[in-house]
Amino acid sequence: MLTDIEIARKAKLEKIDNIAEKLNIPEEYYNNYGKHIAKISNHYMKELKDKKDGKLILVTAITPTPAGEGKTTTSIGLSMALNKLEKKSIVALREPSLGPVMGIKGGAAGGGYSQVLPMEDINLHFTGDIHAITTAHNLVSAVLDAHIKYGNKLNIDTTRILWKRAMDMNDRALRNIVIGLGGKANGVTREDGFIITAASEVMAVLCLAESITDLKKKLASIVIARNLKGEPVTIGDLKIEGSLALVLKDAINPNLVQTIENTPALIHGGPFANIAHGTNSMMATKMALKMTDYVVTEAGFGADLGAEKFLDFVSPTFKLHPDTVVLVATIRALKYHGGQKLDTISEENLETLNKGLENLKVHIENLKKFGVPVVVAINKFATDTEKEIQIVKDYAENLGSKASINTSFADGSSGAIELAKEVIESVEKENNYKPLYTLENTLEEKLEILSKEIYRAGTLELTPTAKSKIKFLRKYGYDNLPLIVAKTQSSISDDKKKLGAPNGYKFTVRDFELSAGAGFIVALAGEIMRMPGLGKIPNAVNLDIDKDGIIKGLS
Amino acid sequence: MLTDIEIARKAKLEKIDNIAEKLNIPEEYYNNYGKHIAKISNHYMKELKDKKDGKLILVTAITPTPAGEGKTTTSIGLSMALNKLEKKSIVALREPSLGPVMGIKGGAAGGGYSQVLPMEDINLHFTGDIHAITTAHNLVSAVLDAHIKYGNKLNIDTTRILWKRAMDMNDRALRNIVIGLGGKANGVTREDGFIITAASEVMAVLCLAESITDLKKKLASIVIARNLKGEPVTIGDLKIEGSLALVLKDAINPNLVQTIENTPALIHGGPFANIAHGTNSMMATKMALKMTDYVVTEAGFGADLGAEKFLDFVSPTFKLHPDTVVLVATIRALKYHGGQKLDTISEENLETLNKGLENLKVHIENLKKFGVPVVVAINKFATDTEKEIQIVKDYAENLGSKASINTSFADGSSGAIELAKEVIESVEKENNYKPLYTLENTLEEKLEILSKEIYRAGTLELTPTAKSKIKFLRKYGYDNLPLIVAKTQSSISDDKKKLGAPNGYKFTVRDFELSAGAGFIVALAGEIMRMPGLGKIPNAVNLDIDKDGIIKGLS
Repeated sequence: MLTDIEIARKAKLEKIDNIAEKLNIPEEYYNNYGKHIAKISNHYMKELKDKKDGKLILVTAITPTPAGEGKTTTSIGLSMALNKLEKKSIVALREPSLGPVMGIKGGAAGGGYSQVLPMEDINLHFTGDIHAITTAHNLVSAVLDAHIKYGNKLNIDTTRILWKRAMDMNDRALRNIVIGLGGKANGVTREDGFIITAASEVMAVLCLAESITDLKKKLASIVIARNLKGEPVTIGDLKIEGSLALVLKDAINPNLVQTIENTPALIHGGPFANIAHGTNSMMATKMALKMTDYVVTEAGFGADLGAEKFLDFVSPTFKLHPDTVVLVATIRALKYHGGQKLDTISEENLETLNKGLENLKVHIENLKKFGVPVVVAINKFATDTEKEIQIVKDYAENLGSKASINTSFADGSSGAIELAKEVIESVEKENNYKPLYTLENTLEEKLEILSKEIYRAGTLELTPTAKSKIKFLRKYGYDNLPLIVAKTQSSISDDKKKLGAPNGYKFTVRDFELSAGAGFIVALAGEIMRMPGLGKIPNAVNLDIDKDGIIKGLS
Repeated sequence: MLTDIEIARKAKLEKIDNIAEKLNIPEEYYNNYGKHIAKISNHYMKELKDKKDGKLILVTAITPTPAGEGKTTTSIGLSMALNKLEKKSIVALREPSLGPVMGIKGGAAGGGYSQVLPMEDINLHFTGDIHAITTAHNLVSAVLDAHIKYGNKLNIDTTRILWKRAMDMNDRALRNIVIGLGGKANGVTREDGFIITAASEVMAVLCLAESITDLKKKLASIVIARNLKGEPVTIGDLKIEGSLALVLKDAINPNLVQTIENTPALIHGGPFANIAHGTNSMMATKMALKMTDYVVTEAGFGADLGAEKFLDFVSPTFKLHPDTVVLVATIRALKYHGGQKLDTISEENLETLNKGLENLKVHIENLKKFGVPVVVAINKFATDTEKEIQIVKDYAENLGSKASINTSFADGSSGAIELAKEVIESVEKENNYKPLYTLENTLEEKLEILSKEIYRAGTLELTPTAKSKIKFLRKYGYDNLPLIVAKTQSSISDDKKKLGAPNGYKFTVRDFELSAGAGFIVALAGEIMRMPGLGKIPNAVNLDIDKDGIIKGLS
């Protein structure tokens, strides 16, 4: 098979103006970025506000494994298939970071015959959204350090600055640094560090903002430090939310591109699914819902992370919920959860498969607790056997969910027709959506509910640090916010080694972090990597562009 | 008078497609970035290669003072006036950094009725060129530190890493930092620092590259460290010039915008005029020369820095030279050079003016040593008196250069008609261009020539560090490169306090730096600031955007 970039190069793209025209977007509401990318103005929402919403399909997955699930490929394939079935559909996805493209082989624009294009731009600078977020983020740091140097009127405690700097790069050497060295002219010496831009609260805020005004309000609320009295210091205290919003004036506008089959795609924003809510911008999703019959969107990591956050935080906050959830599974990943080693993952093994199905079961059960219809998508690999597939189909059916084969990576939309038909049926089913907790629940109650209902823990433990942080949050009136749990994506539990369907264990929350701008509290259950590193041989050594502009090494 | 952003908002912009059409650029060779910005493909140069070059006008200035000279405003006004006189003209300028916009009031897109538009985009992210340079720059650092962590096969001496990280921000706290703290997982602890992106050698290289292939070659040649034997280590040794070129694939393409009077402008690249060559990309200038009768371009700082580098480095390297040099002066700055204090600079004072004219004289004489015709532009302020102006005109005329009034800040093109007519006459004059030194001169000889002919020093001194660095450069075959002198912009000499026309002093070179990718050696005469800081009240607190997208605080 051809590589992703080779397939992308052979694709016949339509001018983005044609895509915009099919969506009836007036010319004054979008701007081209080259021939195949456009940004749709946030002001267009005002024009759309009286339109009826389309159906929302949320794509999530079983617990991720090194074997890969293909959630993005499935989302794109499903949206293309819906269009093939003459249902108007937009796929709304997160935009990839550039940093990881340099680290590991593999971008994040789908793959094979289920891609969004132009993949080389989407995977590189795209329309500059992430660069704008980096700039806004680091402007806060620069103003903060200048404020401290010039008298520190806000009495910021330089040992309790919560705001690190940011860069869209896998750069472990910047995780822990000391800044301000070299004397008075260079400011005040203190500890600092860099996080990758996708982990910035500015990213989360941008993805939740409903307008420029709302963006400014959220930015101003971000807590960046504590003063010498221990009180929170915000970006609003530095009086720079206006300049940050100016820096983000284009980044707030959703990006319009197309799939390899020329159906529309909105690719906008990319917050993490552990320390943030893990789905593309609400602006993009809400705009897409006004423009088509179906919107296929994706939530990061497994259903215990991305989907839970969508259903418990995004849906109540924005008063929208999925008409159907698509749960992606692969035979390979299920076998891995059942104990099969990676090097034999391609061989038929009904024993490990049967055992691994318990992971699928937990996620189906979890999703049904939210009252939404669930469809299983089996992302099929060439090595999967008929027997294996039948086992998964039967298993899902017993749990009340139809399982459909998806081969859109190899076949494009025709590989997702069965799934699309299932989804079209499913969205008409009874939908009793409700979140698992309400804002009236205390922080501890919310955690109790999630650890029991979703993570299947026996007991919940809060460390002394976590307990003392709750007091701080209560004291300053932040304890009633929704909860975002940051934990490993490799297990339903808080321990990445626990594959399959762990239960009855102790779930430990070691600390809380306040994302007051984004409007949630992050519960930290385990170490969360906010700045990846490059490997021994980074993908950067494989990437190239030749004299004619032909690109190599992107996939 | 209205502010720059208010004037910009009232301007009636043409669609950039119209501007491109007037320049006969085929649609397949440019890409829109919104309605009013386009990028012209570097591949378009192949189509243009047989066209005749237009006339090149280089705009430079007397020694800069806090009173301001208005070089960019003059360049834009002159190009608009040439168009008004039915001469096709493009103004080619450097693109501003975003960092300084947050620091001090004042962007870098001209001012008043002599602006390039859309100024709010040009001053912010524009087409992302500088973000791409930042990314490429920092990718080198990330790969370098990963290389060291994973065994350091190149035997890089971690105490002699020359490559710092970069950010487009005024952020003094990042000048001197320690990275890699926190144990083995975070890499190797070492000293580092950040420079502002405009000071990156990647910026210089991008502005000198004639194609993607040339760009890769230059990037690979950049020396980033020395190994334990003291030998130079290059980006080519890390094998990432391909990925850097990929990151820069769009940044290499010149940006097309328009002036406030809808005449074409290319704004592309922004290297410093002390540690680099200080003019917009050669790609933009060469492309512009093929497309119109006149190209007005600008070199940074005073004529002793930017213009000297253009005439001694850029012209011989690219086999093009100015048909006329425009030397911008203001009555206020001349009085300042004559000893007048800033608070009385608006008052008529013939004594300080007459004394300050010696600065103008040195620059006129210097420029004439290159054999090019020189025209003086008096950038007129409302407080300048008729007497003062006449004195400058007479003085310039005595030195063999016509001086013309320029009021394009207040009047647009009509304020630069006199200057434009003078330029049209001047380009037909005899032009005996030759650089002051040749590549056959040794490093010391080149410095002797410049310090005597341009900086008017009595003696040249090289510190022991500088002398030892020459040995290194010789040993590795780098000593035959052109010379770029980095010194204060506030004096013709190496001492910023020496206003007017210093001479007979001792000019000290304290060190050399190798820019092997850009292809020059930097002689350091004084401390060069590569990372500015924010002031006590940074401009960031003045910037804002309202709910309708109206911007405040940019000028």
